[in-house]
Amino acid sequence: MSDAPTIRRMANAIRALSMDAVEKANSGHPGMPMGMADVATVLFAKILKYDATDPHWIDRDRFILSAGHGSMLLYSLLHLTGSKEMTIDQLKNFRQVGSKTPGHPERGHTESVETTTGPLGAGISNAVGLALAERILAAEYPTVFDHRTFALCSDGDLMEGVSQEAIAIAGHYKLNKLVFLYDDNGISIDGETSLSDSVDQIARFKACGWDAVTVDGHDAEAVEAALRATEGATKPTLIACKTIIGFGAPNKQGTEKVHGSALGADEVAAARKELGWDYPAFEVPDDLRAAWLEAGKRGQSARKEWEKRFDALDDAVRNDLERRLHGDLPESFAKAMADYKAKLYAEPKEMATRKAGEAALTVVKGELPELVSGSADLTPSNNTLTKNMKVITPGDYGGSFMHWGIREHGMCGAINGMAIHGGILPVGSTFLVFADYCRPPLRLAALMRIRVIQVFTHDSIGVGEDGPTHQPVEHLAALRAIPNLNVFRPCDAIETAEAWEVAVASKTRPSIMALTRQNLPQLRLKDRGENLVAKGAYELAPADGAPAVSLFASGSEVSLAVEAKAALDAAGLPTRVVSVPCYDLFADQPGAYRAEVIGTAPVKIAVEAAIRQGWDAIIGSDGGFVGMSSFGESGPYKKVYETFGITTDAVVALAKKRSSSAA
Amino acid sequence: MSDAPTIRRMANAIRALSMDAVEKANSGHPGMPMGMADVATVLFAKILKYDATDPHWIDRDRFILSAGHGSMLLYSLLHLTGSKEMTIDQLKNFRQVGSKTPGHPERGHTESVETTTGPLGAGISNAVGLALAERILAAEYPTVFDHRTFALCSDGDLMEGVSQEAIAIAGHYKLNKLVFLYDDNGISIDGETSLSDSVDQIARFKACGWDAVTVDGHDAEAVEAALRATEGATKPTLIACKTIIGFGAPNKQGTEKVHGSALGADEVAAARKELGWDYPAFEVPDDLRAAWLEAGKRGQSARKEWEKRFDALDDAVRNDLERRLHGDLPESFAKAMADYKAKLYAEPKEMATRKAGEAALTVVKGELPELVSGSADLTPSNNTLTKNMKVITPGDYGGSFMHWGIREHGMCGAINGMAIHGGILPVGSTFLVFADYCRPPLRLAALMRIRVIQVFTHDSIGVGEDGPTHQPVEHLAALRAIPNLNVFRPCDAIETAEAWEVAVASKTRPSIMALTRQNLPQLRLKDRGENLVAKGAYELAPADGAPAVSLFASGSEVSLAVEAKAALDAAGLPTRVVSVPCYDLFADQPGAYRAEVIGTAPVKIAVEAAIRQGWDAIIGSDGGFVGMSSFGESGPYKKVYETFGITTDAVVALAKKRSSSAA
Repeated sequence: MSDAPTIRRMANAIRALSMDAVEKANSGHPGMPMGMADVATVLFAKILKYDATDPHWIDRDRFILSAGHGSMLLYSLLHLTGSKEMTIDQLKNFRQVGSKTPGHPERGHTESVETTTGPLGAGISNAVGLALAERILAAEYPTVFDHRTFALCSDGDLMEGVSQEAIAIAGHYKLNKLVFLYDDNGISIDGETSLSDSVDQIARFKACGWDAVTVDGHDAEAVEAALRATEGATKPTLIACKTIIGFGAPNKQGTEKVHGSALGADEVAAARKELGWDYPAFEVPDDLRAAWLEAGKRGQSARKEWEKRFDALDDAVRNDLERRLHGDLPESFAKAMADYKAKLYAEPKEMATRKAGEAALTVVKGELPELVSGSADLTPSNNTLTKNMKVITPGDYGGSFMHWGIREHGMCGAINGMAIHGGILPVGSTFLVFADYCRPPLRLAALMRIRVIQVFTHDSIGVGEDGPTHQPVEHLAALRAIPNLNVFRPCDAIETAEAWEVAVASKTRPSIMALTRQNLPQLRLKDRGENLVAKGAYELAPADGAPAVSLFASGSEVSLAVEAKAALDAAGLPTRVVSVPCYDLFADQPGAYRAEVIGTAPVKIAVEAAIRQGWDAIIGSDGGFVGMSSFGESGPYKKVYETFGITTDAVVALAKKRSSSAA
Repeated sequence: MSDAPTIRRMANAIRALSMDAVEKANSGHPGMPMGMADVATVLFAKILKYDATDPHWIDRDRFILSAGHGSMLLYSLLHLTGSKEMTIDQLKNFRQVGSKTPGHPERGHTESVETTTGPLGAGISNAVGLALAERILAAEYPTVFDHRTFALCSDGDLMEGVSQEAIAIAGHYKLNKLVFLYDDNGISIDGETSLSDSVDQIARFKACGWDAVTVDGHDAEAVEAALRATEGATKPTLIACKTIIGFGAPNKQGTEKVHGSALGADEVAAARKELGWDYPAFEVPDDLRAAWLEAGKRGQSARKEWEKRFDALDDAVRNDLERRLHGDLPESFAKAMADYKAKLYAEPKEMATRKAGEAALTVVKGELPELVSGSADLTPSNNTLTKNMKVITPGDYGGSFMHWGIREHGMCGAINGMAIHGGILPVGSTFLVFADYCRPPLRLAALMRIRVIQVFTHDSIGVGEDGPTHQPVEHLAALRAIPNLNVFRPCDAIETAEAWEVAVASKTRPSIMALTRQNLPQLRLKDRGENLVAKGAYELAPADGAPAVSLFASGSEVSLAVEAKAALDAAGLPTRVVSVPCYDLFADQPGAYRAEVIGTAPVKIAVEAAIRQGWDAIIGSDGGFVGMSSFGESGPYKKVYETFGITTDAVVALAKKRSSSAA
């Protein structure tokens, strides 16, 4: 006998809770939850492998609400399936300060929210990373990992460009355990999607290596059949669910009016009648509560079976996997890095920090099997494919390097998904100037407090001949502006190694490595017994006597400052040099340390081949600055530095001029 | 008789010049120019409507080199077809400081370079805007505009997500005079594209409403036939040209080795032999020079016919079109804005600056028929569709508002293309937080010095319930960091109007309007006889006596500062308020004006519901700051402001505390 009537009633519980919560908040998006309630009910009541009593079970199927504005769908599902945290009071406090039910779902803030969504396209690119992470881990631990990833996405998700990057990656890598449930409701904020769109999504996904089908999203049996059909898939699957947005609100459904605001008391009442839902606001009848709680426990036996398999792992393997899942570092890590740095101290080398990054990454990867690197088609330039990595290919996931293609945004979105999955430390790479393509996922990584590392090489006008389109000048400031994100710009091989040490240990903060194309001398020549990069800034070279000049610099400009110091010292101006490898971490230091490092020299000058914004916090608004105030220029890099007056001579001249007027 | 042998020899001239220039620079990308030389030759010698003696002819066909790394293809074409500027010496100075031949083509720097490319995906999205601009202008001036847009794109262009946004827009709007020439060479930097890609581009483009065909890119007749077939197209067309990257370099062609570095002397010599090119470096035989110069003049008769049609326009129409093409404002503009502001002074209104923006935009649009507005599916929120605009629809281009769909990046890329075309002042809109999706094209607009205006509403935690995913906190700083870009954050309806006045008059600088969701009081209550926003910052309210406190604020926080001033004045601390509607323009002011506005009050406090970065330049590193240092939170906006302590009381308390310790 068909259980479609039960499914519909269970779905109506979602509809009622969603419209009630939005109504109470007088803010939110009832349309999507009401439209996709049937599909979500089939998924959660019949297909999804999960156990609501153990939301952190690592082998659960993942459900990603990419259409994050429909957060009440997810909150309703969590509430109904028995999340302890997601009480009815939380639903009543939808969109209020301090609630567990913010406007858009936030990972880390609310249990069982897999990822933070809202900015469209983010969730589906995360989902690709989650599905990839599962395959990579399954290749290594075949008895532990065997789950699927379902992403609910909207028209907006599929219009955003990152969708193309995400689906091209998923199709190419044959992520057959990935399913997109597309809420094909034909409505967006401006009105019918036909106002701005005429893409045949089925054909588009097929062109990208996906299976793709269309179903009636209000026909529970059809939805279930389509979902069951994906179980033996050899490709990722798109299920386009034809739905009516705001299903059940008789006067507003099927229009943009139901998308992003409360229905209003009259329409809520009319919807109750239309849906045959005779219960007061926020009430769910006992039989449906029971049915939903039962659904939430469907995966318990599977989880118990899984626990046996997990426990049966070899102790060492299990312990190491648990370490990986906790994001901890192996005990051997510190020593390996210390040995590596000892070699650098013993034989200082001139090299580009991208090359130094490669050397450090080789050591890191040697200690951390969970590290998965990759590049957005700049592998030979980014130096992120080390000798101890194997390339991941479609169908052979037992590797640790991803060729992401020319897809910076999709790479970063997928990397966020890999980090979210657990058990993997993902590293991406491209040129620093292309951080602009990556900002939406970088911001979300910072907001979610996840550990991802992006290696952004070619970090200044030092790019040279490629010219201003490829020379970052504003990117350091723009990235430093993002809260909870560390931007490292090391000056030599030692600082690069220290930056890697800090980054891999930063469990709740993403990191960026801004590395040079051009060679740099090694400036740190003796072990000072601590990781100095961890403090963000430190005195690299003290003045000989009372300092007349303090020079502050990061990355490739530290060596200019060191050269300038020699000239200024010789000219009778005792000069100290402060290296600032991580502006963000320095901002976090106690005031006393900051004051000590900034110092009291009468002349303060910052040197960075980038714009001044931000440096005033260190040198003061009256400090001197040698750097950029415009876009760059195409030419051999030394000529470009000269063209913009970022030279040792310029630093020396400015320091002398300021010293004489300060005197 | 087939002219294929001549075409091949003409193409070989491009190949030789390209490999010679890259060789001399020892830097650059020979692979694409050598691979696409045959296609480009067919296009320039047979199809493209242009006149090399008049590169600014407004009805020329546009050629966009989206694969900007292959800049030597374009420079060779310009040189060979007779560009006065593009001498052989410029080719010999490829990639040198000060040359007209930078690493990637730069609009404004080099004549006949239609747009700045290099960051992949940029050119094709510009091309969509160029094609759209042509249709819009043709609807208004059918005898003046009738040209096509050709974009040469690479695998990378089509992997970038923005490609999807661009082709979906082009397909939906049936831009039948747009042709992409896809260099389908199967090679990217990492190696074969099959490492990371398996998209069927033909099927993908067809799914997006395009015609799409594949040709042998080394078969001139086939290429010509495919191009001729597009002449009667009803859709945009993709021509996938199967090519061999580095065609002619016998040992390296068809591999990534030929993509991004000089061939080396031996391979250059071998290529000369392979191509039958018996001439020294940078030499082109006379017969080919003649053939190319002839090609460069092919469009002269068409241009002369066009001039007759242009001259036949009604005088008033022609004069106004010329005004539009020069980017000048009509004489009536200043008065219309003055009248509008006079009404605001007469009847001050409390309103959100997004509403004030709508009112100002209505006046601007009334005066500037060339203004084309649009929104990335946030039309009812951005308030950029005014009553005097008509929506542009597929096939009916006689309007002035674009429904861009949920495609922020593609919108901004296309808008850059519309501005580049000439004759149109394009305006886009989305939420400020989604400026992150827009950064690549915003940066290029700034680099190209073009006039585009982006209206970014919902500009702070004032967004409220949508929560941290939708609340910008770092975006103002991150946008102010981009050189040559004005970020306006007006505090009321008057400043909003003034910001519009400055933006539309900024011929060589793009502008951003950061506008509020929430209502704000009108703070400017009397006409002070000049546009104060144009100075970036100004004293809005003087202190009553020697100032004890200076408060600096932008946008929605200026009213907090004004309220705080009243409380501080009452407490015996004479306080002045400085409004900072455009940080960037204030940075451009003479030092004396800056010093006067910043003032010498012992206590300086900035108030902005965003991060501090940048404000130290005004308040000093020891100044007080009331703002954000983290991501936001979901809740009613007043509660969110309270949660983060951005209130009048907080400003007052901080000012009192600092005044007492300063005393």
